[in-house]
Amino acid sequence: MNKVYVIGMGPGAYEQMTVAAVEALKGCDVIVGYTVYVDLMKKYFPEKEFMTTPMRKEPERCRLAFEEAKKGRVTAMVCSGDSGIYGMAGLMYEIGEEYPEVEIEVLPGVTAAMGGAAVLGAPLGHDCCLISLSDLLTPWELIEKRLRAAAQADFLIALYNPSSKKRKDYLARACDILLEYKEESIICGIVRNIAREEESMNILTLKELRNTEVDMFSTVYIGNKMTKIIKHKMVTPRGYRYDRK
Amino acid sequence: MNKVYVIGMGPGAYEQMTVAAVEALKGCDVIVGYTVYVDLMKKYFPEKEFMTTPMRKEPERCRLAFEEAKKGRVTAMVCSGDSGIYGMAGLMYEIGEEYPEVEIEVLPGVTAAMGGAAVLGAPLGHDCCLISLSDLLTPWELIEKRLRAAAQADFLIALYNPSSKKRKDYLARACDILLEYKEESIICGIVRNIAREEESMNILTLKELRNTEVDMFSTVYIGNKMTKIIKHKMVTPRGYRYDRK
Repeated sequence: MNKVYVIGMGPGAYEQMTVAAVEALKGCDVIVGYTVYVDLMKKYFPEKEFMTTPMRKEPERCRLAFEEAKKGRVTAMVCSGDSGIYGMAGLMYEIGEEYPEVEIEVLPGVTAAMGGAAVLGAPLGHDCCLISLSDLLTPWELIEKRLRAAAQADFLIALYNPSSKKRKDYLARACDILLEYKEESIICGIVRNIAREEESMNILTLKELRNTEVDMFSTVYIGNKMTKIIKHKMVTPRGYRYDRK
Repeated sequence: MNKVYVIGMGPGAYEQMTVAAVEALKGCDVIVGYTVYVDLMKKYFPEKEFMTTPMRKEPERCRLAFEEAKKGRVTAMVCSGDSGIYGMAGLMYEIGEEYPEVEIEVLPGVTAAMGGAAVLGAPLGHDCCLISLSDLLTPWELIEKRLRAAAQADFLIALYNPSSKKRKDYLARACDILLEYKEESIICGIVRNIAREEESMNILTLKELRNTEVDMFSTVYIGNKMTKIIKHKMVTPRGYRYDRK
């Protein structure tokens, strides 16, 4: 059987991979991925063979993996976070049509929204949206429409790809849209380098977030009306009414 | 140091827990949780001490955990899926205000939306919303508003708690709202008992979903305009334009 795994490796630390992901990677002949993630995997599985392609070479990366699987080698395509959420699983199924003899198995992982939420406290305790601010693959008008919809219905929001060298002002633009619907005082959070050595977090208001620069290693959280700060953590109650002692 | 972990155990299988979750559970003196999840944990950690409270006794469950931690016992509160997404992390911080001497550490896990997505293929490959249809803790009007917002902006949607004994028609009501904005032919998916022995999945149109009964062990997925079926899987492309060979 020719087989390729599409594996969500979580935010970056070995400990945040699932047991299934670790077992599948141990059993692989070759691990394929984006250069940065493969470098992390090399630390954890130094005995393995690795293949990489740079950013924007995702279709080539998929074909690399399928070609290896076609040779009969057990192959893993690794994705940061989850394999599906802004991950490679979709493209693997699309390109997999060219390789009908290769079976695809998707293994989920902890996506950035959840990994970062645990660092901030409990920001995503109610209905939430995940929105990427990257307009590389999505028209900005659609991103804007989704921001408006999410704000109008008071969703919690996790923003992926909030910034890059070419998109320095995108987070400010997004905040301006959210501020049309949400109060300036809404609690927000930023987590940088989730589950890595340089991990850091910051809790601030939506107004402050509007004027804060973040980098591409950040995930940004927008609270809802119920979000509050408890013991320096960002917490959104689910709505349980409980009796205080 | 008095410590309580809030642990996302993933969809249910041992293999879908993170390495960090397994390590924390191994190091615990006592594991607290909802009866059904604790029964799963008993299989994986038979030597541990367990404490449970039934559904709707969440505040009592939190206090049980804090009281154990206060005695100096390392304590774990387990949640199915992620610890934050419709999990106990928020309530633990709220009730934790009564126990300032106890440190809370949140460990993320694979939430049902992601675990089930991997079974269906790659339904959540683009911006998505997680919405719970339970109106136990949220007014139905707000749920309806969020469904409308999500549909209008063509979000992918994962529906949690799509049904229960008392809410048999809620999924149909939700579909009726979505059908005001989305085509009848939109691809949808249902996954039952994610990562458990009886796991099953089903791919169907939104119109068909409207007339399908699901149970409380199901997670429901609504596609966007780009969602399609490839090799009997539900796939939403991220938008990568790739050249076919």
